[in-house]
Amino acid sequence: MTELRIVERLRKRGGTAAGLLLGIGDDCAIFRPRSGQDLLFTTDMLLEGVHFLRETHPPRAVGRKALGRALSDIAAMGAEPRFCLLSAALPAWAQQSWVDAFFAGFLDLARKVGAPLAGGDLAGAERFGCDVVVCGCAPRGRALRRDGARPGDGIYVSGRLGGSALGLETGRGAAWKKHLHPEPRLALGRFLAKRPATSAMDLSDGLSLDLHRLCLASKVQAEIEPPPRFPGASLEQSLHGGEDYELLFTLGPGTRVPASFEGLPLTRIGTIAAGRPGLVRLSGKRLEPLGWDHFAPRALSARRRPPGTRG
Amino acid sequence: MTELRIVERLRKRGGTAAGLLLGIGDDCAIFRPRSGQDLLFTTDMLLEGVHFLRETHPPRAVGRKALGRALSDIAAMGAEPRFCLLSAALPAWAQQSWVDAFFAGFLDLARKVGAPLAGGDLAGAERFGCDVVVCGCAPRGRALRRDGARPGDGIYVSGRLGGSALGLETGRGAAWKKHLHPEPRLALGRFLAKRPATSAMDLSDGLSLDLHRLCLASKVQAEIEPPPRFPGASLEQSLHGGEDYELLFTLGPGTRVPASFEGLPLTRIGTIAAGRPGLVRLSGKRLEPLGWDHFAPRALSARRRPPGTRG
Repeated sequence: MTELRIVERLRKRGGTAAGLLLGIGDDCAIFRPRSGQDLLFTTDMLLEGVHFLRETHPPRAVGRKALGRALSDIAAMGAEPRFCLLSAALPAWAQQSWVDAFFAGFLDLARKVGAPLAGGDLAGAERFGCDVVVCGCAPRGRALRRDGARPGDGIYVSGRLGGSALGLETGRGAAWKKHLHPEPRLALGRFLAKRPATSAMDLSDGLSLDLHRLCLASKVQAEIEPPPRFPGASLEQSLHGGEDYELLFTLGPGTRVPASFEGLPLTRIGTIAAGRPGLVRLSGKRLEPLGWDHFAPRALSARRRPPGTRG
Repeated sequence: MTELRIVERLRKRGGTAAGLLLGIGDDCAIFRPRSGQDLLFTTDMLLEGVHFLRETHPPRAVGRKALGRALSDIAAMGAEPRFCLLSAALPAWAQQSWVDAFFAGFLDLARKVGAPLAGGDLAGAERFGCDVVVCGCAPRGRALRRDGARPGDGIYVSGRLGGSALGLETGRGAAWKKHLHPEPRLALGRFLAKRPATSAMDLSDGLSLDLHRLCLASKVQAEIEPPPRFPGASLEQSLHGGEDYELLFTLGPGTRVPASFEGLPLTRIGTIAAGRPGLVRLSGKRLEPLGWDHFAPRALSARRRPPGTRG
């Protein structure tokens, strides 16, 4: 493996898209935006030992998830992915076959959602790590933000929560699949942008922390009931478990959504209220934002912690 | 340090720019491009133990260099930086003061060049690593690429080469400063885009490898003489030493540039010729592309290797 050879292989498989004038192989990628559109940018790291373990996570799933997590941010803003960039630090333990499977998982999803790989960076390192950038577009001024929730808005989630946390704990079944293969809710995000939702974000770090963040940004508080649970997940996993990558959104009092969208349940879990910015109350009692924070140091397996043990 | 607090601090200091509608704090940053412009994107990783050593590289310089390297790619395409994104993996050894100094170096340069920090990602990890994305813009179709060099074009470099390699070897003086504080040649790049140059790239991995890449992209070969050397640098350092971040460019036979630009020497080192794509000849003899390749594994200090020892 030399850098030139890896880059050459990726270039052949990177794909193309409207507006992408120059992809992999130069100092920069060149993109020509269409007029009337805003561009959206998100970055997401996926690190060995932090976000995945090489003993348990197959490389194809790691590659797919690296991109899927960033696409989830694009979905949460109601945007359409346009292209992506990938920086990867490859350690000596990562054989050609591991690297190939990682890129295959990444590029399969990139192709599926129409976001070709336009560039990136490669380096050697002791542990595997990657950083994924996705550029998406949305009609001017129509992207969904976190700061638009207003008192009286209904609070909704897609899907059933806690599946990823349960999967990480048990390592099997539908929950493990949910953990390994998060599905970015792109079609739902675009649907919500048209409705329009008043605010939206993706559930990456757990409902309690993510809703706290949405309420902080919108300067409101939230009153919720227990959310729908993934089969087998505990209440705690549904409240504080990360990586479900479902959408959390709010709708004005006059706005309706169907009970499901393309087979995915959409459930009202509560109401936005005036009050202390960031406060979340569950069945009338204060809910601490116990979701994932990278700087409360602990091992990956500590995501399985019982609620309340976070330092 | 919690993630929320770091993000809050960065948000306050991230800065603003025309077109940047939404910066740090949501799922994505939102940018509204001006019509008539192409957008350029580059990503660059800076990893502890690979690109810097914490024993020798001050955190402020690490932060500045992390951004400077990516800006150098924007400079090489003749573009103007617009905004940047930063993903950072912060290890337990990185105290608040180290992290603050890193961000200060990064944000100082971001402010200086008018590229506010619009977003990013944070995680904990065992070793420090970051990935920097810069978005730049250029008038439609005017970005400088690697693939435009034609037989008969003159080959030029800015500055004097080998200083960064010399600095890494000696750890002192002007050469160490050159290694620590690379200067992205943004003004020169924009000047060359107007001239226009037929091709350009930045010298990040050594003249021999980078010119080889330019010739591969342009499907031409190059005939050069020894380039101007940084005071004290060996011929080998000037040919194969990485991280000079000077510009390598070609000009059509009728195009002239001054002998210096804003005090920076511009030196013709040779001529593009038809022939074997990628071949570089120095004073008539084949020059191997011995510059930096991340996947010929060795320690950081091995950049000091004598030429020809690369595996």
